[in-house]
Amino acid sequence: MKNYLSIKDIDNLPGWVEEAKKLKQNPVTHKNLGAGKTLCLLFFNNSLRTRLSTQKAALNLGMEVMVMNFGNEGWILEYGDGTVMDQGNSEHVKEAAQVVSQYCDIVAIRAFAGLKDKAKDEAEEVLNGFATYASVPVVNMESSVGHPLQALADAITLSEQHPTKRPKIVLSWAPHPKALPHAVANSFVEMMRLQDAEFVITHPKGYELNPSITEGLTIEYDQKKACENADFIYVKNWSSYSDYGKVLHQNPDWMMTQEKLGGAKFMHCLPVRRNVIVADAVLDGAKSLVIEQANNRTFSAQVVLKKLLEQT
Amino acid sequence: MKNYLSIKDIDNLPGWVEEAKKLKQNPVTHKNLGAGKTLCLLFFNNSLRTRLSTQKAALNLGMEVMVMNFGNEGWILEYGDGTVMDQGNSEHVKEAAQVVSQYCDIVAIRAFAGLKDKAKDEAEEVLNGFATYASVPVVNMESSVGHPLQALADAITLSEQHPTKRPKIVLSWAPHPKALPHAVANSFVEMMRLQDAEFVITHPKGYELNPSITEGLTIEYDQKKACENADFIYVKNWSSYSDYGKVLHQNPDWMMTQEKLGGAKFMHCLPVRRNVIVADAVLDGAKSLVIEQANNRTFSAQVVLKKLLEQT
Amino acid sequence: MKNYLSIKDIDNLPGWVEEAKKLKQNPVTHKNLGAGKTLCLLFFNNSLRTRLSTQKAALNLGMEVMVMNFGNEGWILEYGDGTVMDQGNSEHVKEAAQVVSQYCDIVAIRAFAGLKDKAKDEAEEVLNGFATYASVPVVNMESSVGHPLQALADAITLSEQHPTKRPKIVLSWAPHPKALPHAVANSFVEMMRLQDAEFVITHPKGYELNPSITEGLTIEYDQKKACENADFIYVKNWSSYSDYGKVLHQNPDWMMTQEKLGGAKFMHCLPVRRNVIVADAVLDGAKSLVIEQANNRTFSAQVVLKKLLEQT
Repeated sequence: MKNYLSIKDIDNLPGWVEEAKKLKQNPVTHKNLGAGKTLCLLFFNNSLRTRLSTQKAALNLGMEVMVMNFGNEGWILEYGDGTVMDQGNSEHVKEAAQVVSQYCDIVAIRAFAGLKDKAKDEAEEVLNGFATYASVPVVNMESSVGHPLQALADAITLSEQHPTKRPKIVLSWAPHPKALPHAVANSFVEMMRLQDAEFVITHPKGYELNPSITEGLTIEYDQKKACENADFIYVKNWSSYSDYGKVLHQNPDWMMTQEKLGGAKFMHCLPVRRNVIVADAVLDGAKSLVIEQANNRTFSAQVVLKKLLEQT
Repeated sequence: MKNYLSIKDIDNLPGWVEEAKKLKQNPVTHKNLGAGKTLCLLFFNNSLRTRLSTQKAALNLGMEVMVMNFGNEGWILEYGDGTVMDQGNSEHVKEAAQVVSQYCDIVAIRAFAGLKDKAKDEAEEVLNGFATYASVPVVNMESSVGHPLQALADAITLSEQHPTKRPKIVLSWAPHPKALPHAVANSFVEMMRLQDAEFVITHPKGYELNPSITEGLTIEYDQKKACENADFIYVKNWSSYSDYGKVLHQNPDWMMTQEKLGGAKFMHCLPVRRNVIVADAVLDGAKSLVIEQANNRTFSAQVVLKKLLEQT
Repeated sequence: MKNYLSIKDIDNLPGWVEEAKKLKQNPVTHKNLGAGKTLCLLFFNNSLRTRLSTQKAALNLGMEVMVMNFGNEGWILEYGDGTVMDQGNSEHVKEAAQVVSQYCDIVAIRAFAGLKDKAKDEAEEVLNGFATYASVPVVNMESSVGHPLQALADAITLSEQHPTKRPKIVLSWAPHPKALPHAVANSFVEMMRLQDAEFVITHPKGYELNPSITEGLTIEYDQKKACENADFIYVKNWSSYSDYGKVLHQNPDWMMTQEKLGGAKFMHCLPVRRNVIVADAVLDGAKSLVIEQANNRTFSAQVVLKKLLEQT
């Protein structure tokens, strides 16, 4: 593994999940592995869980951490090839990525989708720019099209619930006032392809995810029907993919309720809008796994950093 | 002590002050106490002294520190119960507090009074929100109504001057162009209730502090008279409490001068407006304790963190 | 050396360069030197290389690091003597510098030229304010008129190329859409005075640097002629000094090209505007030393910190 850019970089999901669960039992076992090594976190967007859990994971491994917010602390980057840089952008990602590589052993990057230009978002110019030019491993802390640290944490959370039978897992769209990216949903779907489970995606018409990601998977437009007899319901909003980045509607009927949840466990990556995405009763109830998902972000990051450190 | 939210959480002020003074003599004696433990500092407002001294205190104890500015780095929090979160706020403090608790062993929070809505400020929604939902101890780095790390540092500073007699200590209002919170004054008053001293509060009419905090204490509206024969004069601006958050006037006669100071020592929590709050001659003179007060912020934080670490 | 404020604080450039090159071969040799010591980085302006490389240097020496952005995290500082601080500035540098000195062992400061008021910029109020009032050593991370950590890194880079003969080194102006400070050019010139080299400065008329800095040096207004047979060409934009802070023109003929570079090595401090300052072919070519210059920023900072730590 050169980098951790997407779920596709996981060579053995069950093995990684087991390793993460072991790290969780004794987080500082490998405190010497990262000694003298430095992780640099570069944020082009806001973050709470990712910011803190990735730092914590690095500290557990004995690494030093340097955190930088590119927006207000660094320079505006240019990504184009051959550009005459006489406008607002001060530095090319070619230099930025090579330079950062001089000061750290692993670089982790968060850069959300802009949701205005599908081709540009799918080109992943920030993440791929760094992955192309950095001379150290690059970790995706949520990019335009994927959030593989979250999906790996979700896999750990699912595994900890050790369902006794092959579980039914539903990914359900829910309403939200703002246009949100597809990254979390995309990586969850990719991770689900590596799980032995009955997997159903449900959303209103018009909210289909990128068809190349959902190809061959079950899509059920009736949310209630999709949720019947589910063991886990993962709720998440995303904006339209076909009418790219648009909020087509915020139909409140799609909010997750106790009734729809039934006997299933509730999952969400957070932050979550209460009583818009999910009713208070669900989020505050015993079936909610959201805090454990957040907790597992540390061990998801830690297993990734550990694997990258082991091969250097 | 579950949390350090206010002066009321100090069970034995003289004991804490003595412990802080011992830590000051050898700050790294307890370097092992915090090994493998992480402090998370969450700032909802600007900070210089608190930001650096609290970090330094944690490093002295061997802790790791993660610093986060909620404003521009995290998500806008919601505090209400049962709110339909379809407006600007992205995450509820219920989740934020539980999530942060997954990544650290102690969380410290700065969230100033907004000075627009007295009831809201007195509800301390940020500090109390975290204290209610966090599963780790919470430390107040200045909230709407209190700044107990400052008042503890002030107690250390007073003690270091070891007055030979029961001292006369004055808390004097001074003018300021902007509306400032009451937190520093409130906590100083609460701390003074635990001191064996003659304590006088002086301010112009209309600038009375919350009467439930000053109940039974001496208020003298004539500043010169209040300052006569004082051993320590603590100067601080605050906005009106009765006409909540308003600057009623900026009467320059209330600026602290050499003449009014007399033989007393000058105290202020900083930052301070020169020649508005206090004359240059006082601040630059031998009677000023402000830098020592700032220095003691480290040991005030360190004694609090030490006590919280010892009971985990 | 009390502080590292300018190239003039280097007592023996060849000795420092050799020491830096040794640190580069084994960066953690002196890991114990900084144990229990804290470096505080104060940024009044953006930074990528300086932010990360100075942290890395400190970590290599075993120091703890606290990073603070004064702009959005702290208070707006006042620098004037005797000012009545009833306007926007909340804290005087006198207090800020003394206070920060309570929490760290070395303080490093970045504060760019405003380019509006020459006298104010040349007074270096931020850097000199801290140097005057701090009780710990102060390091210049680029001030109004100098960037001595960069120039020291440049000296290391030049030395690593070990030219077999006395080299010809050219400092060439290049166009840029925005008004940039003179700090990098100034410190490079000052450092060149300590080198055994043929040194030529080239720029269009009107872009003369501060004559007190270039006094006695060769200035050639014909860029092509200046670059003939050069071994190293250091390219950098700066705004006019005589018509202070103005962009007189952005003549694209002054961009560095393969043709003008000839057999010379290309140097630039970064960030650099591609195809404005320098053609892609030069920057991406084998003659470019820019990434190695960035790498040497770590060891330039490390040798400075090491010397400051050794004398405390």
